[in-house]
Amino acid sequence: MNEARIVLLSGGIGGAKLALGMSRLVNNDNLTIIVNTGDDFDHLGMRICPDLDTMLYTLAGIANSEFGWGRRDETWTFMRVLQSLGGETWFRLGDGDLALHVERTRRLSAGESLSEVTDDIRRRWNIAARITPMSDQYVATRVIASDGEIGFQEYFVKERCAPVIKCLRFAGIEKARPSPDAAKALRAPGLAAIIIAPSNPYLSIDPILAVPGMTAAMRAANAPIIAVTSLIERRAVKGPTAKIMTELGAPPSPFSIVKHYAHLIDGFILDERDAAHADSLGVPVRCTDTLMVTVDDRKRVAQAALDLAADLAERRS
Amino acid sequence: MNEARIVLLSGGIGGAKLALGMSRLVNNDNLTIIVNTGDDFDHLGMRICPDLDTMLYTLAGIANSEFGWGRRDETWTFMRVLQSLGGETWFRLGDGDLALHVERTRRLSAGESLSEVTDDIRRRWNIAARITPMSDQYVATRVIASDGEIGFQEYFVKERCAPVIKCLRFAGIEKARPSPDAAKALRAPGLAAIIIAPSNPYLSIDPILAVPGMTAAMRAANAPIIAVTSLIERRAVKGPTAKIMTELGAPPSPFSIVKHYAHLIDGFILDERDAAHADSLGVPVRCTDTLMVTVDDRKRVAQAALDLAADLAERRS
Repeated sequence: MNEARIVLLSGGIGGAKLALGMSRLVNNDNLTIIVNTGDDFDHLGMRICPDLDTMLYTLAGIANSEFGWGRRDETWTFMRVLQSLGGETWFRLGDGDLALHVERTRRLSAGESLSEVTDDIRRRWNIAARITPMSDQYVATRVIASDGEIGFQEYFVKERCAPVIKCLRFAGIEKARPSPDAAKALRAPGLAAIIIAPSNPYLSIDPILAVPGMTAAMRAANAPIIAVTSLIERRAVKGPTAKIMTELGAPPSPFSIVKHYAHLIDGFILDERDAAHADSLGVPVRCTDTLMVTVDDRKRVAQAALDLAADLAERRS
Repeated sequence: MNEARIVLLSGGIGGAKLALGMSRLVNNDNLTIIVNTGDDFDHLGMRICPDLDTMLYTLAGIANSEFGWGRRDETWTFMRVLQSLGGETWFRLGDGDLALHVERTRRLSAGESLSEVTDDIRRRWNIAARITPMSDQYVATRVIASDGEIGFQEYFVKERCAPVIKCLRFAGIEKARPSPDAAKALRAPGLAAIIIAPSNPYLSIDPILAVPGMTAAMRAANAPIIAVTSLIERRAVKGPTAKIMTELGAPPSPFSIVKHYAHLIDGFILDERDAAHADSLGVPVRCTDTLMVTVDDRKRVAQAALDLAADLAERRS
């Protein structure tokens, strides 16, 4: 078992895959996953945290691998009845998924922090790795599209990413602080690596990095910061990364991602299909097959990031 | 089709049975059901209205006839996951049932009245009879038991009616007013009968009668007021009526029920098994088999109440 202390920054689906791989390689007591909460929103009176939920479901081994979101063995009676009541059904909520939203909302209303609730849930579900929101303060990613501003889930789910993005803003970010466990993990002595998951850099990672004090804490940790590419041959495995990059004026390429993370990352995991770009990226690179279908795929990508971090640490010393 | 204008006062299960029978006998455009909301409570962040729900499910033909509460074809994934989260599971919420609570809570929070929400739901579910809460103001039935005061659902569901009741109070009742549809139905010209369903007089009917202005409006309607017995041979068909009557010092008998409704009712539907008491009750009585198992049973009891009301109206004229 690798005893390295690791911090992983992650969005939802792709990040959760890497997190699962990482959880099979390192002592999970030493693994902290800082999860994007910019996607969180209030819907039908409930606080919904899609990326945290995907991470919890994935590491608890109860994720729906077919959808990429939600729980396996899910039932859909709630949605069926909600429709008969004329309720809003554009955001699909499974019956079991609802329990997480209802119970978390109840506990937040009772004064618990999102960190505390999340930590309790991951323990109840026997997840050894620490899962923590980027912040306990509410931050809402807002999409400023060519025809007006909309909330992230409206853009992502209701509008299926169709609006052309002009820019993104993270409402409430100025009052956010890194969650206690995020700050603690970045402060802990002997941190071996900070890994940025292959999540959408703009939608999933930028909100984390925008939390005041987050990048300063990452730099102060004095550990190699490694980003994993979210593109394979200029395409995202899932989701609108390439479309959004084009709309924001960044050609969808590994170079654009490295440039986006400039002054922050020390190394980059590139897909082997893009190996020709390795020398032009301006940071130390390791190539591997970054497509994560099986658990072994996930372990391979996680191992590549650990190896590159170890190399970089060795060069420093 | 009987074109009589009818108002029915009702609690949950027993009252809903009578309401279903009545809905098969009269023009439903002329039928208004005023439902107890003293059992309503807030649970897991949702407003739950057990008696309204039972009435809606029953008249929509989707009630769970086995349980006597909730929906048929229900699934229970939510409760299973809630349990894994350490949530409160003493009040059982089916997945489809949840949709009603979530959507109603959302609409109440958005500023709609309980009347408006209820009326919209019954229309969506093709219920022709008007179903209205006793009041749009929140009233909470509180049980003052020998070992302290508890909420109604705690008493009824969590404690399974075990505590000994000293008395009941209806918190918030002083600010309640009859719901607009309740007031309108009682004011409508040509009301043929006001029928008090065979619900628990203390737990289900008293909260309705305690709404300021309700009994005055009932009397002013100048229609026969008929109560249907909730006891057969001194026992309740379902629920704690007999136990509560004993605890409150009223022997569980038809006489006690009539006495309880004294100065209000003009007639009483007695179970035929208790016919020997008919002459001692001090009000006009009609006897029938009040056990309602089949739809025909329900129609029979409803018909008895309509017939007695017609007799009394004829005597008046």
